[in-house]
Amino acid sequence: MRQRRAQDFICTADFPVVRTAQGKIRGFQTRGIYTFHGIKYADARRFHRPEPVKPWEGIRDALSYGFVCPLLTQDTPSCEALIPHRYWPMDENCQYLNIWTGSLDPEAKKPVMVWLHGGGFSAGSSIEQEAYDGENLSRYGDVVTVSLNHRLNILGYLDLSCYGEEYANSANAGNDDMIAALRWIQENIRGFGGDPDNVTLFGQSGGGMKVWTLMQTPEADGLFHKGIVQSGVLDGFLDSGEGDGRKIAEALLAELGFEKGQVKELETVPYRKLADAYRKVAPALKKQGFYVGENPKANAFYLGDPRKIGFRKEARKIPVIIGTVFGEFDFGPGYPGKYDLTRAQTMEALEKKYGRAAGELAELFEQAYPEKCLTDLLSLDNVFRAPTIDFVKERCKSPESLTYSYLFAYEFPFDDGKCAWHCSEIPYVFHNADRIPICRTPGVMEKLQDAVFGAWVSFARDGRPVVPGICWKACEKDREHVLVFDESCSLRTNFDHALIEKHLEATGPFRMEEAENIQH
Amino acid sequence: MRQRRAQDFICTADFPVVRTAQGKIRGFQTRGIYTFHGIKYADARRFHRPEPVKPWEGIRDALSYGFVCPLLTQDTPSCEALIPHRYWPMDENCQYLNIWTGSLDPEAKKPVMVWLHGGGFSAGSSIEQEAYDGENLSRYGDVVTVSLNHRLNILGYLDLSCYGEEYANSANAGNDDMIAALRWIQENIRGFGGDPDNVTLFGQSGGGMKVWTLMQTPEADGLFHKGIVQSGVLDGFLDSGEGDGRKIAEALLAELGFEKGQVKELETVPYRKLADAYRKVAPALKKQGFYVGENPKANAFYLGDPRKIGFRKEARKIPVIIGTVFGEFDFGPGYPGKYDLTRAQTMEALEKKYGRAAGELAELFEQAYPEKCLTDLLSLDNVFRAPTIDFVKERCKSPESLTYSYLFAYEFPFDDGKCAWHCSEIPYVFHNADRIPICRTPGVMEKLQDAVFGAWVSFARDGRPVVPGICWKACEKDREHVLVFDESCSLRTNFDHALIEKHLEATGPFRMEEAENIQH
Repeated sequence: MRQRRAQDFICTADFPVVRTAQGKIRGFQTRGIYTFHGIKYADARRFHRPEPVKPWEGIRDALSYGFVCPLLTQDTPSCEALIPHRYWPMDENCQYLNIWTGSLDPEAKKPVMVWLHGGGFSAGSSIEQEAYDGENLSRYGDVVTVSLNHRLNILGYLDLSCYGEEYANSANAGNDDMIAALRWIQENIRGFGGDPDNVTLFGQSGGGMKVWTLMQTPEADGLFHKGIVQSGVLDGFLDSGEGDGRKIAEALLAELGFEKGQVKELETVPYRKLADAYRKVAPALKKQGFYVGENPKANAFYLGDPRKIGFRKEARKIPVIIGTVFGEFDFGPGYPGKYDLTRAQTMEALEKKYGRAAGELAELFEQAYPEKCLTDLLSLDNVFRAPTIDFVKERCKSPESLTYSYLFAYEFPFDDGKCAWHCSEIPYVFHNADRIPICRTPGVMEKLQDAVFGAWVSFARDGRPVVPGICWKACEKDREHVLVFDESCSLRTNFDHALIEKHLEATGPFRMEEAENIQH
Repeated sequence: MRQRRAQDFICTADFPVVRTAQGKIRGFQTRGIYTFHGIKYADARRFHRPEPVKPWEGIRDALSYGFVCPLLTQDTPSCEALIPHRYWPMDENCQYLNIWTGSLDPEAKKPVMVWLHGGGFSAGSSIEQEAYDGENLSRYGDVVTVSLNHRLNILGYLDLSCYGEEYANSANAGNDDMIAALRWIQENIRGFGGDPDNVTLFGQSGGGMKVWTLMQTPEADGLFHKGIVQSGVLDGFLDSGEGDGRKIAEALLAELGFEKGQVKELETVPYRKLADAYRKVAPALKKQGFYVGENPKANAFYLGDPRKIGFRKEARKIPVIIGTVFGEFDFGPGYPGKYDLTRAQTMEALEKKYGRAAGELAELFEQAYPEKCLTDLLSLDNVFRAPTIDFVKERCKSPESLTYSYLFAYEFPFDDGKCAWHCSEIPYVFHNADRIPICRTPGVMEKLQDAVFGAWVSFARDGRPVVPGICWKACEKDREHVLVFDESCSLRTNFDHALIEKHLEATGPFRMEEAENIQH
């Protein structure tokens, strides 16, 4: 037999191979990390609940990412320097997950971190951003990283429940897929060195919403144990209306030329046709106040927004990290030369945006962010932070709930200093900052990454997020302790509440239509 | 003014900004490399010749890759461990190029390397493979790297010339786009530190064909000065038939419900409809022997295959590197345990494939490749190597033609040793081997990369490919000197001609239909 040399890449006929409940799969190992791309965790008929895949003989390759869910519209690439994307072929047969792990020993029992991607509930995928790659998180964090695709938009969230039992949960089929993936993890993750009794969900934007909607889902009880909600609470995004499903289905049937009640036809019409019809009929229905089919809807499966109905008692016990970033949806061109503006010039710009509130806001801003440039007030998020404060308040009603709050406030070297935008913390979470050019600031990148990544991973390990040199306390009733991630990190209590309240007053509440133009 | 710190990423309001003939564009700089993604180099109406884009005021961002050309069918991800892909949003408005450079000094005059992607003439894009990223090639090679998208398949190569002057070159619209990009480079590349008088085209598979079709295109004269053809010569792929364009157009019009002669309608019908119609009508026409619309067609613009009509005298003067890889289209599961087979077992497998020729082939193989496992004969390419030998022969008819031949014969650590497959040399060319896990063999990766990358870059610099320790001679009449890239590199003369001839006899010539199932 020929002598094999040490390799930084290994993939032979029988290594690495793991036996899952349905059959054996083969991945590859690179620099110590075993990698499995595109494991099919479930199958599903359109609008129906997912089912386990059929068992197979022999070894299946898990060497290619699986299809991602088709989108209603194609993205137009923009802001790629801020958020590098990775697109992928689409098919509604999209129930695939990916695993990165440093061990295949069933006794290794490493913490499992399951990434739920953003894009609302209508877009995105497990590999949509370059930063989502799990190899470094597993390598440097000694965890098992899992990411997954699931059904989105009308494939995942169209409410056809009024048409019979078989569609009972079509309004939450996407979340149902996630539960199927979590069940798959329970059943199989030990073979990948993971601990099924220590599963942490983490997700950003829509991914953060997925975390807390699953906390409010009885079928998910016991399938995960901790949650991290990154920029994942906002108003007006998740709602419910009784009986609206029929309205949408009827409009779709009419648009597609089917008879009333021929809802079965919607199962087989090509997705592109269905999506086009939906895009045609949905805006008018939305205008009439109907709740249409792109987000989970409260029912027996998903009980509803905890800020409206409170946290379920099982959800209260789940430790949570929750936070936002400074600028969120401020993807604009920035404020060139902001550090060279005189105070008078800055105030002029502030008054233009905030009117008579500018003076008070400036004062509150400088109290909350004494180290920041006053012009940054123009970039301050008015979408996620206020609802997140509410979320934390609701959590703190139960003394048993552990809730760790953060704010990612880093200023990037873009356009003379750009406040952290929606998604900008993700490269640091995944220990992938070096892969994303805009994160490459010597002396800062590593430190900031160690703080964010280190906190996420220590939380996944034992429920306590650790940032070196700081005692990150959980929030208490009326006392929101906020870990502010920046060039220097600090823990600050209720530090921006007055600012955020006044800011919301001045800008008015965020309107859903604004979010629909932003696909992240 | 605030003190700015040294950055590994710079993108301010006015830096880096380059003035092009049409207007200013802004990119970013990372670790010394200036990067511009998605520069629009031309506009074009469907089936028409490209035109320069309209001038603009102010600064346009070149921070996001541009649309890629729509494909006839969606890829199904497979073999991703062998060739990691990167897909992207599609639009026929796809004339975009990308630039990576270490200098913006008009006096820097660095060699310019222009990458033409593979995928036949019907698929692929400038960023379709992870390995295509130009940052490292520019950094380590001190060259200006350019890659580009252009029109493909029926958008780039549907022959409507019989319908009038405005469609005179629709059969080569994709190549026409490339010429527009090369003109843009002539006009603008000095602003990116490049030398417009030292432009090297390099491309693989379809990209290699693009290199030599442009050598046979008078309008490209003077726009480039050297060419590298990687696995880019094969039989039956490029052909021409007089008058076939009308047949296809009429079939398309009928399929789409238009009247005969309403060819104008084809300009505005949505691409998806046009593509679906084409996919429906093309197979029957192909069966009838008609040449359909997915490849360049010889006309006044593109003169034709040099192996049929000879090289144009301008083409003869262009120095060329040309070569193939050992296994090419052998993407199969490999031959597990091949090093453990007895000679009898190997001969049995060979006889199964080659019949009575097995013995002679084995002998010829062991003469050509004494260091290789005899089982590898089963993987030997029968698509590109023989036509490439012909190509070299045709070149060597002119003593003035400099032609450097190579064969990439490396065995990868996959499936117990997998012979180099189509595309597998690309990561080494771009100095991106470390980004592609399967290339990460300690002690081999760097050496092999230095050899391949170093040869390509030195050739781009002054027309002489340098591999350390080897005098890489140009081919001579009846003497093909072949640089064999492997764990150890060597220059060998006519080393596999007898083998290839006998092999082709045993397998029969490659049939086009086989290639159509492989999209790389």
